[in-house]
Formats: sequence, C-alpha cells, structure tokens
Amino acid sequence: MKIAVIGLGLIGGSLCKSIKKNTSYTVMGFDINPKSVKKALEQEAIDIEMELDDLEKADITIVALYPEQTVDFIKNNPDKFKKGSIVTDTCGIKEYIVESVTDILAEKSVTFIGAHPMAGREFSGFDYSVDNLFEKASFIITPTKKTPMKKLEQLEDFALAAGFFKVVLSSPQEHDKVIAFTSQLAHIVSNAYVKSPSLKNESGFSAGSFLDLTRVARLNEEMWSDLFLLNKKPLEEEIETIIKHLEEYNKALKENNKEELKKLLRIGRQLKEQSMDYYNSLNS
Amino acid sequence: MKIAVIGLGLIGGSLCKSIKKNTSYTVMGFDINPKSVKKALEQEAIDIEMELDDLEKADITIVALYPEQTVDFIKNNPDKFKKGSIVTDTCGIKEYIVESVTDILAEKSVTFIGAHPMAGREFSGFDYSVDNLFEKASFIITPTKKTPMKKLEQLEDFALAAGFFKVVLSSPQEHDKVIAFTSQLAHIVSNAYVKSPSLKNESGFSAGSFLDLTRVARLNEEMWSDLFLLNKKPLEEEIETIIKHLEEYNKALKENNKEELKKLLRIGRQLKEQSMDYYNSLNS
Repeated sequence: MKIAVIGLGLIGGSLCKSIKKNTSYTVMGFDINPKSVKKALEQEAIDIEMELDDLEKADITIVALYPEQTVDFIKNNPDKFKKGSIVTDTCGIKEYIVESVTDILAEKSVTFIGAHPMAGREFSGFDYSVDNLFEKASFIITPTKKTPMKKLEQLEDFALAAGFFKVVLSSPQEHDKVIAFTSQLAHIVSNAYVKSPSLKNESGFSAGSFLDLTRVARLNEEMWSDLFLLNKKPLEEEIETIIKHLEEYNKALKENNKEELKKLLRIGRQLKEQSMDYYNSLNS
Repeated sequence: MKIAVIGLGLIGGSLCKSIKKNTSYTVMGFDINPKSVKKALEQEAIDIEMELDDLEKADITIVALYPEQTVDFIKNNPDKFKKGSIVTDTCGIKEYIVESVTDILAEKSVTFIGAHPMAGREFSGFDYSVDNLFEKASFIITPTKKTPMKKLEQLEDFALAAGFFKVVLSSPQEHDKVIAFTSQLAHIVSNAYVKSPSLKNESGFSAGSFLDLTRVARLNEEMWSDLFLLNKKPLEEEIETIIKHLEEYNKALKENNKEELKKLLRIGRQLKEQSMDYYNSLNS
C-alpha cells in the first residue's frame, strides 16, 4: 500500500515515522519546504519525495496541514487523487473540514474521511517529529452517514497498523463539541494562566501544578486562532462555563464560607476521580 | 543530629525517607495514627517512635501537619522543645503560621523558621510517601528580620543534606502572594475545569493537555480549603485576574476578531517562553 503525506510538520512528520516504524507501506512525502523533505528522506521518515501528480498512486492520502490549507489543498487538487482512494486529514476541528471537501471528492470517486490524531507537542515542525508520538493516542475518525463502511474500516485498520493506541469514532459535530473542552479550552486556560503579574516571581515557587497548568501556554497562535474561530460556539460555552465555576470559588472565599468552599472542591475532586475510574476501566 | 518529624503523612513520611536516604541523622517519628508509625518503622523511614517528651532531644523538629494543627501542636507544647533547637513546618501558607508561633517559641529559646517543601502528589497519607519526592524540589524558607542567621544557615544546610534540589528564601508575605499564583490558583482552576458538562464525553478525546490541566483537580478538600481561606486576598486577586483574561479571549471569539485572538495568544506564549528561558538559565 502507498501512503501520501502532505505537509511534513510535527504531525505529518511523526505520522511518516510511525508508519515507517510499524508497517511496510511505502510513504511518499510532500512539503513546500525543501529542507523538511530533505530531512525526512535522510531520516528515512519517507521513502520518496513526491510531486502532486504522484497523488494518483496513493491508496491513502493524509493531508497534515492547517485547517484552511487543508481545505485549499483538496479544493485545488480534486482531480489528482486516485479513484477509489481515501483522503483524510489531521485537523483539530472536523465539521468545517468534512463539510468543505467531502462532496467535491465524492464527485471524483474519492472518499474523504475526517480524522484527528490525538497527540501533540508544544513545538512545531519536522525537527520535533518522533516515531512514538501516537503510541498512547486515540485516532479519532469522524465518518458521516454517507461514508462507505468498507472505506471506514480500511482507515481504522490503517491507524491501528500505524501504531495508534486505539480508534475512536465520532460524528464531526460531536468531535468539535468535545474537543472544545478537552483540548481548546486547555490551551486557552493555560495561555491565560501565565498572564498574572505574579508570573515574574514564580521561579522557585513552582511545583508540578504550575508546570502542568501552563505547559500548553506555549502554542502556535496562527494555527490555534484558526481552530478556535472555526469552533466558536462550543468553545465560547466552555470558557463561560469555567468562568462561572471560578466565580463560585471566589464567592465562597469572599464570604469566608469554608463549608461551601469544601463542597465546591469535593465536587471537583469526585468528578475527576470518576473520570479517572472510567478511563482506567477502559484501559484495564 | 536528631530530627523529630511530627505527622507521618505524605509530606512527613517523604521527609523521613529522604532524610534517612541522604543523611546519617537519627529520625524520630510521631503520629496519632499507630498504623502510620508502624509502617514507618517497618520501612525504616524512622529510627524511633517518639513520645512528645522526646521533643527535648530533637535538634530540628519538623511539624508536618495541616495549618491549624501545626499552630495547635506548637502552642500546646512550647515547653517540650529543646532549648536552642529549630522548629519548622511544611505548610503551604506562611504568614499565618510564622505570626502565630514565632514569639511563643522565642520566649522558650527555641527558633521557629517557617518552611514549605515545594512538592506534592495528588494522594495523601504515609502509604504514598517516597524517598525522592523532593529531588527536584525547592525548599522555601521564610525567615523574618528576627531570625538568627546561624539558625537560618543550619536549616538551609539541613534541607540540602536531606536531598532538596535547592533552597529559596522569601519573606512569609511574599511567599503567600506567589504561592497563591503558582499553586493555589492551579488547584482551583484544575478543580473548576472538570465541572463542564462535556466531561462525561471526554474519554478518547483527551491528549496530554486535558490530563495536565486536570491532574490536581484530585485534591484533599479539607486541607486545601484551609490553605485557601488563610490566603484569601492574594488568591481572590489571582482568580479575578485569570477570569479577566479568559473574558478577553471570549470577547475576541464572539467578535470573530482573529487578529485580536492571535495577539492574546501570542502574548501568553511569549510570557511562557520567557518564564521557561529564565527557568532554564537557572538550571544550566
């Protein structure tokens, strides 16, 4: 099987390395930056530097670009993909992507299926790509009612073969709603956290909690501002939800109400424990 | 040298184990729970189970209890400590502790110096204590103008001998202000984070960011509600600061203002990078 990977950044590069490590598939790589292609060849992350015309050889094409670039790439090259092949992506929002390109490709007998590899690092670019980024990660696939079952199964098999920990199926809408909470809100909160004037005195006073809360404050603002705006409504709801809860703790503090404060903290602890129990039960 | 550790919970137990691992000091342990004492003896975390009268033998006494208990323990036993010895504590707030007990002990020729070992785990009790909890941790010491320099140096030397990564000096007031940001706010935000209705769908959609943001949501609400209320003002300011910043992102989203959103994210990224640079420069 031949796999084309479009965009050799952190995610595209790590996908190439994972595929090469875990399968015998041929990996063709494309990037507008010749240095990334050169490094990918040197590190044997890809077998072949491809031209766009080589898309007709790929059984699966993974477009690993930013959201707008992903849509543009597919819209600009609908005739180049192999008939009967699968095209997928790696974007952190799915409804916008799936709605933008599925029909265009279907007209060309090409199946688009949206996907979201659930891993990342707080660095960008091929230099940071690694062959084990997805070892513990979900590969979320967001089929629609029109997605052919056989193609869906083929993409699931591919993801597991390439080294993902598990495949999760979701509708594009549900994906975007949950991801607003599990990923987008985390990046906003972390980025907001470091804006306290107290940051300048932090050194020496930080244990793990500060480092955990602020790790993803270091984000790629170009990519994330796109992702956030393409998922406005769910993300706004999540921000408003956490603000509402933060205000409850603040009110209990101001009122010196220890019982209320303890209750608020207990509810949070129990919710976290329940989510850990559920998580552990899935992995045991 | 003889060290008394009062309270064999996560912190007290880990201190005992670190002292035994890294020094040849004699460790005497005290806990109201006989099971913890028994385990500490069996695991050789302590050399001797002590009575309160044995406090007169200790060159350094570490009171590793909750804030109110720490103050009560010292107030109830001022005559028992060895003349010329040092008494310290492990509480996450310092002004309240230092002001409550320093003079009482000074009258008995005993030096109280507040301290805060900067490490923890999201579990409580001796069973979770480990001998390497403080390997990468600061030992914050909060002397006052009255603290004898020799005693301060003795406590610094002790902390480094016991295996702490470094000693940080701070006034009690400054400690409480910074800790409201680096530790207390982290616990509140993490605890608030898991209260979204989206939590129930989180499984399979979580990469590292969600797990990092919510790790310390699992907290001991009895201890933390005390710590928060004893540090009301600085903590209220930090909560209000992060709410204010979260509202800025939300406003940019609602206004579909990509430039503003990108700017807000860039400022956060740069602040985080600066704090990492500073951190790295200290450790290089």
